[in-house]
Amino acid sequence: MQALEPPVRVRLLRYTRDGPLLVAAAARITVSKKPVERAMEMGPGEVEKWIRELVRRGHGSPLEHAVYTFEAECSRVCSHQLVRHRLASYTQQSMRYTEGFLRSMALKVCSIMGVGSCPERPTSANDYRVYETVLREAAGRLEGPDGSGWALIVAASRGYVFNPSWSPETMARVARAYLGATAEYYGLLAGRVPREDARMVIPQAVRTRIVFTMNARELLESFLPLRMCSHAQWEIRMLAWGVWRELMKVHPEIFRYAGPRCILEENRVRPEPCSLEQYLNGDCDFTIPRCPEMVPKPGIRSCLRYAAESSRASAGPRGLGG
Amino acid sequence: MQALEPPVRVRLLRYTRDGPLLVAAAARITVSKKPVERAMEMGPGEVEKWIRELVRRGHGSPLEHAVYTFEAECSRVCSHQLVRHRLASYTQQSMRYTEGFLRSMALKVCSIMGVGSCPERPTSANDYRVYETVLREAAGRLEGPDGSGWALIVAASRGYVFNPSWSPETMARVARAYLGATAEYYGLLAGRVPREDARMVIPQAVRTRIVFTMNARELLESFLPLRMCSHAQWEIRMLAWGVWRELMKVHPEIFRYAGPRCILEENRVRPEPCSLEQYLNGDCDFTIPRCPEMVPKPGIRSCLRYAAESSRASAGPRGLGG
Amino acid sequence: MQALEPPVRVRLLRYTRDGPLLVAAAARITVSKKPVERAMEMGPGEVEKWIRELVRRGHGSPLEHAVYTFEAECSRVCSHQLVRHRLASYTQQSMRYTEGFLRSMALKVCSIMGVGSCPERPTSANDYRVYETVLREAAGRLEGPDGSGWALIVAASRGYVFNPSWSPETMARVARAYLGATAEYYGLLAGRVPREDARMVIPQAVRTRIVFTMNARELLESFLPLRMCSHAQWEIRMLAWGVWRELMKVHPEIFRYAGPRCILEENRVRPEPCSLEQYLNGDCDFTIPRCPEMVPKPGIRSCLRYAAESSRASAGPRGLGG
Amino acid sequence: MQALEPPVRVRLLRYTRDGPLLVAAAARITVSKKPVERAMEMGPGEVEKWIRELVRRGHGSPLEHAVYTFEAECSRVCSHQLVRHRLASYTQQSMRYTEGFLRSMALKVCSIMGVGSCPERPTSANDYRVYETVLREAAGRLEGPDGSGWALIVAASRGYVFNPSWSPETMARVARAYLGATAEYYGLLAGRVPREDARMVIPQAVRTRIVFTMNARELLESFLPLRMCSHAQWEIRMLAWGVWRELMKVHPEIFRYAGPRCILEENRVRPEPCSLEQYLNGDCDFTIPRCPEMVPKPGIRSCLRYAAESSRASAGPRGLGG
Repeated sequence: MQALEPPVRVRLLRYTRDGPLLVAAAARITVSKKPVERAMEMGPGEVEKWIRELVRRGHGSPLEHAVYTFEAECSRVCSHQLVRHRLASYTQQSMRYTEGFLRSMALKVCSIMGVGSCPERPTSANDYRVYETVLREAAGRLEGPDGSGWALIVAASRGYVFNPSWSPETMARVARAYLGATAEYYGLLAGRVPREDARMVIPQAVRTRIVFTMNARELLESFLPLRMCSHAQWEIRMLAWGVWRELMKVHPEIFRYAGPRCILEENRVRPEPCSLEQYLNGDCDFTIPRCPEMVPKPGIRSCLRYAAESSRASAGPRGLGG
Repeated sequence: MQALEPPVRVRLLRYTRDGPLLVAAAARITVSKKPVERAMEMGPGEVEKWIRELVRRGHGSPLEHAVYTFEAECSRVCSHQLVRHRLASYTQQSMRYTEGFLRSMALKVCSIMGVGSCPERPTSANDYRVYETVLREAAGRLEGPDGSGWALIVAASRGYVFNPSWSPETMARVARAYLGATAEYYGLLAGRVPREDARMVIPQAVRTRIVFTMNARELLESFLPLRMCSHAQWEIRMLAWGVWRELMKVHPEIFRYAGPRCILEENRVRPEPCSLEQYLNGDCDFTIPRCPEMVPKPGIRSCLRYAAESSRASAGPRGLGG
Repeated sequence: MQALEPPVRVRLLRYTRDGPLLVAAAARITVSKKPVERAMEMGPGEVEKWIRELVRRGHGSPLEHAVYTFEAECSRVCSHQLVRHRLASYTQQSMRYTEGFLRSMALKVCSIMGVGSCPERPTSANDYRVYETVLREAAGRLEGPDGSGWALIVAASRGYVFNPSWSPETMARVARAYLGATAEYYGLLAGRVPREDARMVIPQAVRTRIVFTMNARELLESFLPLRMCSHAQWEIRMLAWGVWRELMKVHPEIFRYAGPRCILEENRVRPEPCSLEQYLNGDCDFTIPRCPEMVPKPGIRSCLRYAAESSRASAGPRGLGG
Repeated sequence: MQALEPPVRVRLLRYTRDGPLLVAAAARITVSKKPVERAMEMGPGEVEKWIRELVRRGHGSPLEHAVYTFEAECSRVCSHQLVRHRLASYTQQSMRYTEGFLRSMALKVCSIMGVGSCPERPTSANDYRVYETVLREAAGRLEGPDGSGWALIVAASRGYVFNPSWSPETMARVARAYLGATAEYYGLLAGRVPREDARMVIPQAVRTRIVFTMNARELLESFLPLRMCSHAQWEIRMLAWGVWRELMKVHPEIFRYAGPRCILEENRVRPEPCSLEQYLNGDCDFTIPRCPEMVPKPGIRSCLRYAAESSRASAGPRGLGG
């Protein structure tokens, strides 16, 4: 059976070369009379020591010099939450000027429905009407039991986000709603309603593309703690874990200490900070009586494990180019 | 004929007492050895002179001490744009935990459809099923010509935003999409899908409530210039003009110079700044060859007038309490 | 014996009316469908409950709607640290255009030295030369034992900051350096060096005036925790405690939970948050193994008490108008 | 004759690889359905076209993805101005914990004065007393005509900033003040006054080291326009022009459009934006009636040339390692 598009995709596009070294060297000049050039001669062990100390003391400002740019795909529900993080930069695909991922979805539906007349680049009212008709029919086909049902759900996942943990019935029901609403959208375009108005009927789950830049401090102290937490909504939680996995590939010296708020708080009050992995596998215990989200000490680790495991689906096989 | 709910509502909740005086006094201490207390003895004429000078020189930092808190209603399309302004504070109604404006809409639809069995506070699957059924029927009734059509559109405007300039046919079509999608939403709730997931099918036009705080500099130099402009999307443009009208009621000394980007740029290069009203009524001419949005000098005033006139509908008669 | 000018003065100029109510009402709309107007009907007990919950969960964003503007006097060492808090607004007295507090200091020195010829508003080279001469003589008089020594130190405290805990010998030595450097400054002005260049020789302890605006979240989560801490430099620590005392007069519902970083962290991991007073007087114990500044649990309370007691000198009897 | 240390040094440490391409690609995804990967296949000509368009429209947000980290040396007068730019990250050498550049200055003075007993790493009261004595004598030697005068001024420029346009007499006078104040500083250290208090007597011109990170938007729209302007104080103006020269070496596609506020405003209202070089050499004329700093159109170019020429001294021959 064909797989759904993953709800969330995230890829690290650019980042500060030698970020950990730059951070350590910047931290060092605060208490030294030597220039940064000299401070940057330190070895990896010393870099790790300096960063560990910054984490332990919650001394975040030197971490701001390491900066990361990501490309992500997620729903507009998720992007609305994402852009609430104000210490970051965003550039997002506009639905005033484009149909976003909807055209690619519609063409796939056409192919599944065996309709050969769907234009690749619709411009006329008739073109849009063809899209409308096919999408409405496809939505109708999801009402009853039908062999092509799953293929249509998969097609819908090109344009909209599905929660991978939904039951097949919920998937079908939601896909029907997505396809039906997209039919309305193309119907409005056929009626010469401008794109920026027609989009009003599009469900919030519509997929969007966004490029964002955050520094290591914002990531460590705000974005990851809030959004990797099991109390965060599942989609942005997937995004946050995906971001963290990308970061671990390039700068583990910094991001091994990242995690939900429980870890942020714990690392600031225990003698030595521990890594997310150490908390997950039980090599480090929590000492705080409860996490900021009110989970008492004995429950924190299993809460953390749930967050980690439920967020594995973020990296799809096809890459962002889809 | 009953009126639609206005797409956008905005109300000034709190603001800095004597904001203009505080701004002028702060500006004055930069070049004086006297304390603020003494600077605050200045009269209204002097306050106006100081503020005019700040505007003329684009010296914005003293304007940050005057701060304004608004309550607004608009769609989630609009709130997604709003929260992109990062030098501000936001608190928004959550759709993870509430149905927002949808329940009030559904109850109104029940009443129009003559269904007496809609529970005020739905909790069981059956309760939600009643909502689903009524909304689906109402959506169906909007397909053909029907006396109750307009009343249903008006009811739909409780939960979703309509562009007041749409044709009646577009209104009906869009209302049908809104009601149909809300039926799906309640169907998912009936199926025990959590609210945070069920909302995925809700159209982006869904109404939301948001409290936001901005200072006079962010308002004058960024939010109002970008969003009062005729190139802004109509809904956030309505919001921006609504914000400006609220501000003019309390601090005209500052906000008379506010306006789209053409005015921001013009006031920084002409001998003396002019007010928005002076530009609108022709008492001041533009000298810049073009505005930042590429409208050439001769067209700027009519562009400005269009922006002003098309944004009058923002203040509804019923107040925010609706 | 005449008292020194306090090193730091701070006064709350303006703040959000009903700040705690506004914060509580904003927090409430996130989980309610009611407008803010309705939420603002809640009573004081409910306001306190909501704010306590925000503190307990570290849910800071609603606290941003309450905003506070202060006027402060401190050294430029201190103001350089202050303006590092980026989520705030600043307007500072310029020494490119004014002599700041130095002229008032020089006139007082003239009077002590019995020199009647010091012009109130110096403009010519000769005028500045008079200042230079008097100040140099006064500096010289501080070298040996002399009855007028203390009066000159007091005069110097009009223009520069003294640590109240210094020994009389250090005071005299430092005052001599301040007066000598100010003599050089006026000598340079006499030589027609522009003010912005002449100030290069002025000691960093020179007094400055600054107006700043911060919201309750920045105050509670960043400024007060970092700067009320006993590890902060004494001058900005005095400023921070002064800020806190001003805030307690108007909005104790919010600021009773403020304090150094130990309190910020502790309140997020203990079952119920406690107030600064409760920690100080022992009604609440710390549970965290150490504070972020590495003080182990048993030492935190005495560290906190030291910070509180050593920072009492911030409010002078004369007010800011001096 | 030996040269003074340049007042300001600045060096680009790290920056976003392919910054202009990343900016152009991000801008492009707003109006395209293609992923960033595809957008990044564009050629240099297209990159330049996209960036030019962003500048022309004042559409700054995509420029935030290109980020630059600098190391700078300047006075604390200058760093106090620098850190007022809040959309940036700073890490600065502390004078609570180090003597900064003062020890290196003192050792050079010892060598000039022929004192062999100055300890490299002073720790005891006696050590500091040696420093104090030598510095006081050196200051005294600058009072009259003396062959070693210039060498002492050069030594003083290791620890403090001199305006290169000062007359020799002013230089000597200022150097005397600097050395005298440093003598007081070491005298206080000898008296066991902590470094953080002893620094109170240090002149504001004291040299400091700071690492800062800014994105291209903050640089283009705020830092460079305000600080490259001839109305900015000379030292931060030197810093800003030094920053710009560093940026032009790596990303001229973006920074050719940078310049003082006159250029920022002009490029937003003329048909096509021009580069700083084109304005300087007269290939582009100004159309705005005046600049934001009130210079009328006919005077803007010569004002711009003055700013450029008076700021050439920023790059010293010795590099930052000095």
